[in-house]
Amino acid sequence: MCDPVFPYSKKRISTSYHCRRVGKLLQTNPNERAVIYHRGGQGAVRDDTDVEVDFRQESYFFYLSGVEHPGFHILVDLYNDTIYLIPPTVPDTEILWKGEPDTAKELLEIYDADKVIAEADVPALLQVLCPQVVYVLDTVDTSIIKAAGIHECQLDKVCLRVAMDESRLIKFPWEIEHIRYAAQISSHAHMALMQRAQAGQPESYCEALFRWVCARNGMPRQCYIPIIASGSRAATLHYTRNDKTLPEGEHAMLLVDAGGERFCYGSDVTRTFPISGRFSSEAKTIYEIVLKMQETILSQLKPGAMWAGLHNLGVYILCQELIRIGILVGGTHEELLHLGLPRAFYFHGTGHSVGLDVHDVGGRTAGVLTNSYHERKIQSQMLISRPLKKNMVLTVEPGLYFNPTSIAMWTQKPGYAKYFNMDMINKYMPVGGVRIEDTVVLTEDGYDNLTIAPKTVNDIEALMACRAQSYMDSMP
Amino acid sequence: MCDPVFPYSKKRISTSYHCRRVGKLLQTNPNERAVIYHRGGQGAVRDDTDVEVDFRQESYFFYLSGVEHPGFHILVDLYNDTIYLIPPTVPDTEILWKGEPDTAKELLEIYDADKVIAEADVPALLQVLCPQVVYVLDTVDTSIIKAAGIHECQLDKVCLRVAMDESRLIKFPWEIEHIRYAAQISSHAHMALMQRAQAGQPESYCEALFRWVCARNGMPRQCYIPIIASGSRAATLHYTRNDKTLPEGEHAMLLVDAGGERFCYGSDVTRTFPISGRFSSEAKTIYEIVLKMQETILSQLKPGAMWAGLHNLGVYILCQELIRIGILVGGTHEELLHLGLPRAFYFHGTGHSVGLDVHDVGGRTAGVLTNSYHERKIQSQMLISRPLKKNMVLTVEPGLYFNPTSIAMWTQKPGYAKYFNMDMINKYMPVGGVRIEDTVVLTEDGYDNLTIAPKTVNDIEALMACRAQSYMDSMP
Repeated sequence: MCDPVFPYSKKRISTSYHCRRVGKLLQTNPNERAVIYHRGGQGAVRDDTDVEVDFRQESYFFYLSGVEHPGFHILVDLYNDTIYLIPPTVPDTEILWKGEPDTAKELLEIYDADKVIAEADVPALLQVLCPQVVYVLDTVDTSIIKAAGIHECQLDKVCLRVAMDESRLIKFPWEIEHIRYAAQISSHAHMALMQRAQAGQPESYCEALFRWVCARNGMPRQCYIPIIASGSRAATLHYTRNDKTLPEGEHAMLLVDAGGERFCYGSDVTRTFPISGRFSSEAKTIYEIVLKMQETILSQLKPGAMWAGLHNLGVYILCQELIRIGILVGGTHEELLHLGLPRAFYFHGTGHSVGLDVHDVGGRTAGVLTNSYHERKIQSQMLISRPLKKNMVLTVEPGLYFNPTSIAMWTQKPGYAKYFNMDMINKYMPVGGVRIEDTVVLTEDGYDNLTIAPKTVNDIEALMACRAQSYMDSMP
Repeated sequence: MCDPVFPYSKKRISTSYHCRRVGKLLQTNPNERAVIYHRGGQGAVRDDTDVEVDFRQESYFFYLSGVEHPGFHILVDLYNDTIYLIPPTVPDTEILWKGEPDTAKELLEIYDADKVIAEADVPALLQVLCPQVVYVLDTVDTSIIKAAGIHECQLDKVCLRVAMDESRLIKFPWEIEHIRYAAQISSHAHMALMQRAQAGQPESYCEALFRWVCARNGMPRQCYIPIIASGSRAATLHYTRNDKTLPEGEHAMLLVDAGGERFCYGSDVTRTFPISGRFSSEAKTIYEIVLKMQETILSQLKPGAMWAGLHNLGVYILCQELIRIGILVGGTHEELLHLGLPRAFYFHGTGHSVGLDVHDVGGRTAGVLTNSYHERKIQSQMLISRPLKKNMVLTVEPGLYFNPTSIAMWTQKPGYAKYFNMDMINKYMPVGGVRIEDTVVLTEDGYDNLTIAPKTVNDIEALMACRAQSYMDSMP
C-alpha cells in the first residue's frame, strides 16, 4: 500500500467577498449606518451526558466567516466595510482541557476578517458604530447585541436571509473549487465501492468504506447520511438504515447516494451498479433508461434553461421508455403522460442547488422550511423557479424505481390499473431502483460535470472487472 | 488485502433483565400498580436545514429497550411484569422515502419486549393498567402519557434515575461482552495507528484511520470524539481539533485517546507512542513512570477497593518518581505530596465507569450534571465513591503532562516556585504528555483487562518496527 498523499491543507476562503455581495444585495442606503450580526453554532453535548457531539458549523455563519469552530460571532459593518470576528471567551480552566485558543493574529491569518475583538468589547464597538439597522436572521440568538444596547426595533429580521439565499445560489470560483474537490473525492469513493462491494457484505461496511476514502482525503464529514441501498431497498429514496446485507441474485443492484464535504462545501453523487459486477438484461434495460434521461437533460443544461422544463423533459423520456418496454399500456404517450403515470416510478425532483447544504438555499422561498418528506419532495421539484445562471451548482438526478408502495398507490386509484402491465412490472421488480446523480456547475454556455465516477454500463462493468486488484492498494 | 470478515451481526440484547433489575431497585410496593415510561431520542435536522444528523439513541432508553432507532417509546408494567414497545407512527407518504417500518413481529424478534402497541393505543392501555405511579426521568417529554390521561401528580420524577444509575453501574454479562468487543477492536485501531502514523501526516488522517478500523468491524460510531494529540498537544487533555500535523523530532509523541462503541456500548482507550517509532531516553523515562503508576493501580484493583485510594496510590508513585528524576525538589516526599505538587503534572481523575456513556452513570449524584470542564474534572475524580464491585467496568488512566498553563499556575503561587526544577522540566517538556488508559472489568478477585493493545516500551517499539508491512493488508 503506497503512502497516503495529503493535498488538503486549508487555504483561506475569501469570505469578505461573500459579505460584500450580501451587503450589496441588502440594498442598504449608503448613508445608513447598517451592520450584519450573526452568531455561529455552539458546541453541544448528547442528551444529559457530557459526551460532546461532532460539531458542524451553521452554514450561513460559515458563508460569512469561513470559521469551522463553535462559539464565534461576526459583525459586518456595511457602512465602513469592516468585518469583525468575535471568538469565544475561553476560561483559564478550560485551557488545560482544550488547549490555547488561536490568537487574534492567527485568526486573521486563517480567516478573511479585518479585526478580531473580544466578546467583552462588543458593547463598546456597537456604541461607536451606532447602527441604525442591524440585519439578523430570524432564527439567531441576539442576546449578545441586545445586552450591548441594541433594541428590538433596530433589528431587521427579514432581509438578511433573502440576501444570503440569493448570494449563496451563485457560487464564487473558490466555492466551485471546494465543491469540485468534494465531488471528485466522492467519485473516487464511489469507484472504491464498485471495486469492493460483494454479495454478503453488510451495507454498513460499504458506508464505512465510503466514509474512509473521503476522510483519508481530508473530508471527515459527509454532506448527508449516505444511502447504501441494496436489492429491493434501492427503490426507497432516503433509505439510510444501511443495516441489511448485499443480496445475491443476477438482478441485484446497489444504489449508493453519498457525497463528502470539504470545509462545509458539499457534493451529492449517486451511482447504481450490479452487485455481481455484470448487469442482467433487465437491469441494463432499466439502467439505460435512466442514463438516457440524464444525458438528455444534461444536453439541454445551460444558462437560461428553466429547471421545470428539464424535469418535464426527463419525465417525457421516461414515459416513452416505459411504453417501449411494455410497462405502461393502454394509451398514447400523450395520454399516459397527461395522467402523470410515470410518477409511479419516479417520485422525486430532478435536481437541486448544492453548496454549504446538500439541498442548498436559493430559489426556495425564504423561511418555508419543513421536515415533512412530502413537502420536501414538492420543494425539491420546485427548487429553482427562475432561469438557470452561470455558476449555479446543481444536481441532475433522474431515477426509475420499482417501489411496491408507490405502484400500489397508483394502481389502486379507480380506473388506473389498466395502464399498468403487472407482468412486466414484476419482471423488472428485482432490479429495485436506479438513480444516477451528478453534481455539475453551470458555465457560460453549458455545464461542467464535477463528478468523475463512471456511469455507462460498459465503463462500470470494466471497472468492476478489476476487483481482484485491490483499490486500497492502488489509491493515492 | 484479504476479504473483510463481518462478525458483527446483532444478537438481541436481554434488556428485559435490565427492566426487571430497575424495577427491583425502585422497591415498588408489590401491590402498587406502577409503570415505567420512557421515550427514546428523536431524529433531528441540522440548524434550519433539512439535513438529518446521525442519530444516536439516548442511553437510558437504549438500556431499557435495546432500540437504536429514533421515535420509539417504552412502557414497563412493573405490576404485571410486561414490557410494551411503542414504535413511531409512520405516515404513508414517508414510506416511499424511508421504507417500510419493521412489523410488530419483526420488532419482537429484534428486541426483548413482550408486546408492541401503536402510539394510538397508548390511552387504552393506560386505562387498563390504571397506574398509581408512573416512574419517569425528570428530563423526559411526557406529552404522550399526559394526553392519555396521566396526571402530573401520578408522576415520580426522582426515583427512576437513581434506580437506573444504580443498575447501569453493575454490568450484565452481555453488556461486558459488547464492551469487550468494542475495547478489542479499538485496540486493533490503536495498533493500526502505531503501524502507520508518521511525521508529516495530518492528525485528522490518524483520526480517519482509527474510525475506519472501527467502522469496518461493525462500529460506525465512536464513543467520544477521538483525541489525536501530537507533540506538545499531548499535554492538552481534551484536544479534539486534530487539525495539526504530526511533528518530527526525537521526543515527539502521539497520544491517541479513542474508542469505538458497539450497539451503544462504549470503550475508552489511550495509547501514547513515539512518532519516530523509537522512544527517546526522555520519552522512555516519562512513559515508564506512567506505566508504573498504572501497573501499581491495576495490581490493587479488585472488589472492595476504594477508587479514591487507588487514585492516591497513583499520585503517591508519581510524586516519588518526579523526585527521583529531579523535577520536584526542595522537600521530602511527604511534604511535596502534601502540597499537592504532583497535580501540576497530572490534573485529571484516574478513571471512571464506562458503559452506554463514556463517563457512565452510577456513583455520580443523580441530576448533578454539568458542562463545565472544571466541574467535570472534579466529578471524574470522585466518580465512584463506594467500594468497587464485581462487574463494574472502569478505566484506569494515569497520565503525566508537561502543560505550560498548568506549570505556570503552580509555579506562580507564592512560595511554590522553589519546588519546581525548571531545567529538568524544560528537559522533558518536548515529550508533551503521556496517558495510558485501559478499559477493564472487575472480576471476583481482581480484574479482566478488556484492552489488548501493547503498552510496554519494548512491545510498542517491536510493533512499530513492523511498519513496512502494511497493517491494512493483514488485518482481519
